[in-house]
Amino acid sequence: MPKKNHFSKFVGILLLGFVVKTCLAGIDPLPSWNESPAKQSILLFVAAVTDPSSPDYVPPTERIATFDNDGTLWSERPVYFQLLFAIDQVKKLAAQHPDWQETQPFKAVLENDMDSLAASGHEGLLQLIMATHAGNTTEEFSYSVKDWLTTAKHPRFKRPYTEMVFQPMLELLNYLRANGFKTFIVSGGGIEFMRPWTEVVYGIPPEQVIGSSIKTKLELRNGKPVLVRLAKINFIDDKADKPIGINQHIGRRPIAAFGNSDGDLEMLQWTAAGDGKRLMLLIHHTDAEREYAYDKNSAIGKLDKAMEAALKNDWSVVDMKNDWKVIYPED
Amino acid sequence: MPKKNHFSKFVGILLLGFVVKTCLAGIDPLPSWNESPAKQSILLFVAAVTDPSSPDYVPPTERIATFDNDGTLWSERPVYFQLLFAIDQVKKLAAQHPDWQETQPFKAVLENDMDSLAASGHEGLLQLIMATHAGNTTEEFSYSVKDWLTTAKHPRFKRPYTEMVFQPMLELLNYLRANGFKTFIVSGGGIEFMRPWTEVVYGIPPEQVIGSSIKTKLELRNGKPVLVRLAKINFIDDKADKPIGINQHIGRRPIAAFGNSDGDLEMLQWTAAGDGKRLMLLIHHTDAEREYAYDKNSAIGKLDKAMEAALKNDWSVVDMKNDWKVIYPED
Repeated sequence: MPKKNHFSKFVGILLLGFVVKTCLAGIDPLPSWNESPAKQSILLFVAAVTDPSSPDYVPPTERIATFDNDGTLWSERPVYFQLLFAIDQVKKLAAQHPDWQETQPFKAVLENDMDSLAASGHEGLLQLIMATHAGNTTEEFSYSVKDWLTTAKHPRFKRPYTEMVFQPMLELLNYLRANGFKTFIVSGGGIEFMRPWTEVVYGIPPEQVIGSSIKTKLELRNGKPVLVRLAKINFIDDKADKPIGINQHIGRRPIAAFGNSDGDLEMLQWTAAGDGKRLMLLIHHTDAEREYAYDKNSAIGKLDKAMEAALKNDWSVVDMKNDWKVIYPED
Repeated sequence: MPKKNHFSKFVGILLLGFVVKTCLAGIDPLPSWNESPAKQSILLFVAAVTDPSSPDYVPPTERIATFDNDGTLWSERPVYFQLLFAIDQVKKLAAQHPDWQETQPFKAVLENDMDSLAASGHEGLLQLIMATHAGNTTEEFSYSVKDWLTTAKHPRFKRPYTEMVFQPMLELLNYLRANGFKTFIVSGGGIEFMRPWTEVVYGIPPEQVIGSSIKTKLELRNGKPVLVRLAKINFIDDKADKPIGINQHIGRRPIAAFGNSDGDLEMLQWTAAGDGKRLMLLIHHTDAEREYAYDKNSAIGKLDKAMEAALKNDWSVVDMKNDWKVIYPED
């Protein structure tokens, strides 16, 4: 239908004019983003779905945006930060568990063997979490995460992990919310590892965090009901299970999705398969100096098939080195 | 600490004065509620947690209210409405399944044996759902629910099921939201049975609906990703599993919870066990004429232990016959 395409192009040009004017007026909602195709695609998308006279208009209740966390909202190197948390917990408790010296993945932790650990993936991570936290209540676990975050520092950047978040993405989250979007995290990381801090750091409340989880059980302790964390996996929120997690928690399809690795491919495909205008965006880690540079040969945050899909389907790709003025928030 | 009690009482009297004044001024936020202890407890609670100068103040982000659905927001007689939906689906498909004539719970459905069906509970209901819907996609299921709701009518009241909702509870939902609360459904009913209509009927979006579910699987059909519903139970959101569902989906403890049966007891206890001011409310079905009258001897919506707990702990109890001016919205 060439007529519709012409019309879409015309509307696109009109919207682009609006966007350019807004920026010229000095009201850049994404000040840490250099002018780039990725930034333009975001501004055009938001303008199109929020303008009631646009053919692409989406009512506010349906403006659902989902974000991967590790590598998309904060760094994930040298290994997932939750793994560094689990490592610290294992070391703390090792004296009480002599068998850990000979059992993986604990052996790898105690020997600082990061490669073996990385290879164990999210499942290995959850094994560590379960071993170090089974029997704890959800509240106790939340305290231990918050406690760790106040003291632990990133090995290379020497700053708290909650300051290893991406400033351009914080601006994007705020920009989307200011335009009526509801922002969700959809991460392979532990749901209870993220919830204690996502509201303060990202402005994303616990009820909008989806992640991997272990099973819990209601028990009475000292006459009070508590939820005890069990050493049993409930859900791994990765790859083909991300759309399942989205459906389970949100119950409708996002119109925008943001990721950085092959683990996000199905979430982006699921988002793309809906009707109407969509925004799919991948973050490509290209900045070895200010952050890290990695893609298809990386054990953590491997980006291969998702990049292929992005190029084939004309999804947006952020080149961190060239597209972002700053990486982390200023001190 | 008698001093604190005196102070609380003093604040209570001040707030009651405010509430009475508001009502005298003609701005009754709950016009379908007669003056009663239950209504007063709601007004006092909301005034206390929303007044920044009150010792009971709760910031908006933590104003989480959870509602059971069947028997709390809409009727549940003669049987759960989802069961009536499943029954209609079984009858529709019976010709293709001759074995159903001799297999429970299908036999009960085809013979209109409501007692056997009721005894099968939420699990029996889910069996029917699974048998009639396995292989369908989540979108197809959503359509079939919406389709049924446009044509099916309640056997006794001869009105659509979406008009079998309680007018006083609609007012309560609106009142809470107007005061910064986020309202959630926490129901033993199917999550995908509720989501297609809760936003229009209750103002509760799909992402704030928690319920029982069957497992799903991501598949490609005609080159498009779909979520296929599997004949396997994922989660039964009832009794001791309600706090688990709340933790899984919301990640924080409600400060107000509303139910009507023993299936809601643990949700109310979980809510009550948090710090600070709380509101726990039970709806007692006492109106055989305008709705139904049942409690401890009922197979559906059995109210026995939860009522004991309410009396013991001074939770609020609605006497439907005396406390509600109307039951259903006017035509």
